[in-house]
Amino acid sequence: MSKIAPIALTIGEPGGIGPELCLKAWLRRKDENLSPFCVLSPITILDHAVKQLGENVPIKVVSDISEAIAVFDNALPVLALDECDAIPISGTASANTATVVIESITRAVKLCEDGSACGVVTNPIQKSALYEAGFKHPGHTEFLAELAGPGTVPVMMLANSKLRVVPLTIHIALSEVPKQLTSDSIIEQCKITATALQRDFGITLPRLAIAGLNPHAGENGSMGSEEKTIIEPAINALRKKGLDVIGPLPADTMFHDEARESYDVALCPYHDQALIPVKTLDFHGGVNVTLGLPFIRTSPDHGTALNIAGKGIARPDSLIAALKMAADMAHKRLTGA
Amino acid sequence: MSKIAPIALTIGEPGGIGPELCLKAWLRRKDENLSPFCVLSPITILDHAVKQLGENVPIKVVSDISEAIAVFDNALPVLALDECDAIPISGTASANTATVVIESITRAVKLCEDGSACGVVTNPIQKSALYEAGFKHPGHTEFLAELAGPGTVPVMMLANSKLRVVPLTIHIALSEVPKQLTSDSIIEQCKITATALQRDFGITLPRLAIAGLNPHAGENGSMGSEEKTIIEPAINALRKKGLDVIGPLPADTMFHDEARESYDVALCPYHDQALIPVKTLDFHGGVNVTLGLPFIRTSPDHGTALNIAGKGIARPDSLIAALKMAADMAHKRLTGA
Repeated sequence: MSKIAPIALTIGEPGGIGPELCLKAWLRRKDENLSPFCVLSPITILDHAVKQLGENVPIKVVSDISEAIAVFDNALPVLALDECDAIPISGTASANTATVVIESITRAVKLCEDGSACGVVTNPIQKSALYEAGFKHPGHTEFLAELAGPGTVPVMMLANSKLRVVPLTIHIALSEVPKQLTSDSIIEQCKITATALQRDFGITLPRLAIAGLNPHAGENGSMGSEEKTIIEPAINALRKKGLDVIGPLPADTMFHDEARESYDVALCPYHDQALIPVKTLDFHGGVNVTLGLPFIRTSPDHGTALNIAGKGIARPDSLIAALKMAADMAHKRLTGA
Repeated sequence: MSKIAPIALTIGEPGGIGPELCLKAWLRRKDENLSPFCVLSPITILDHAVKQLGENVPIKVVSDISEAIAVFDNALPVLALDECDAIPISGTASANTATVVIESITRAVKLCEDGSACGVVTNPIQKSALYEAGFKHPGHTEFLAELAGPGTVPVMMLANSKLRVVPLTIHIALSEVPKQLTSDSIIEQCKITATALQRDFGITLPRLAIAGLNPHAGENGSMGSEEKTIIEPAINALRKKGLDVIGPLPADTMFHDEARESYDVALCPYHDQALIPVKTLDFHGGVNVTLGLPFIRTSPDHGTALNIAGKGIARPDSLIAALKMAADMAHKRLTGA
């Protein structure tokens, strides 16, 4: 993977565990065989995190992200952003650092667009603090989609070593799910998922499994009709386009060891149906991948964890998995293998 | 456990895998250290199953279930029911055998009620075939509750070596769940569950965890209000009665290895939320336990499996786990330890 450009790693909420995780991931670069990454952050935030962690993490400011490749073995490469108005306090999310949080994301996307970064890995943000500072987007992913340009449809995939899942509806009340699930949305998300698995995951003909909405996938309409009216028409349309799709499957029997062998990704009508199995099987190694963007984007599958920020106890497993997945995806996209 | 009475094991749908599982469980009685059980069935059904399986399973008719204890080591004890009108065909559920299926269940309950059986373990039934013959109950569990007498509220618990779950609503369309979930029903089911865990599972002060209905347990009302209007009032009422209850918890993060250590049973607003984690963690060893009945009742956590009946390939893991759990529960109920 020596030919790929460095990964642009955003700092995320400075009061959260993001800065500590950047250091811990770098400390494990050799054991985990990590591809070079470069943090986009004001220097003071990382200097402060190094002091808090009490480990030897030399920081090296680079003027161009390409320098990160040579630097990475011996120091944590940082593309320095303008300093914040206030020094962040671990455990407290603040609107004072919102400009830095947003700038880190914006710069990372630009570096991808001009080809100098191979992908973006984002540390978690605290939306409430950003809203106070005027941030207008429902979340991280929607902001990235807007930066990517009009017409971008982001698809959230959670993945770990055992399972990949796509929730077909996400952060809405359960009572809204039957109303918001549509055949068109299922078709669009399945197509984006299949394309991404081909291009970025090296799966020639991805096998998609779609879960039913109702218990036992509705049991022939006796417990809900959405399988027949919404999901089956979507599956038929996708098959006509040549996609390998099975379903609607009863969700409770599709995630055990043997069942998972029959597909490459499970697409589920709602949040908990997708996230329960993936987080139950491997809680710490999960990665959040945004499919459908023109650039590669992964992130750890956890929040800012303000309650443990600055204490040195945050686990970098998920960030490391996100960095590895982004590098793998970039390699496959570049080489087609 | 030598003092407990035998388990009454129903034959279930004769065209399904029940008869084969009875034989396979008995063949593993020593390896699995099974307590004595007695099958309630016409002899021809078991004779036929022995021929199909092609293994040496001596069958011994007993006139009283208490004889099963002495018989069990050397032969499969059977309390003989009247023969069916027709010989069952493996792979086909038929209304012709409905009388036998129902009689097996009814007799098992009577044996529990008069103290000659320590509990009922039921093989799966095929509801459609029973309906043809005039069966009026929504399912197996409701029939058992009616046999138990008026006012009986059965609570379904799924359990394996890793997790116990109770779905607070069961076989209804997902769109019905927010309408049918009530504080009163949560309170009633939690109380029955706590009582059963104390009496039959030896847990002095059971720790109950209740999942939220919505993603992230509603995230403070921003994704659904049922946590605040239905679940939290139920939890407060239960705590006032001295029960140890936590929740509403985000369902996606409550089932991984570390999270499961904080409770003895998870109660979930709907079917898939409860059944996905339990079946993902251990698909073959799951047991369905009906709490709230005056007698002990467990069953394997699978259906009649008509598609593989008579082929000799059915796995008895879940029936064996159900037999063990019933014996354990009977032992705890008898000895209080």
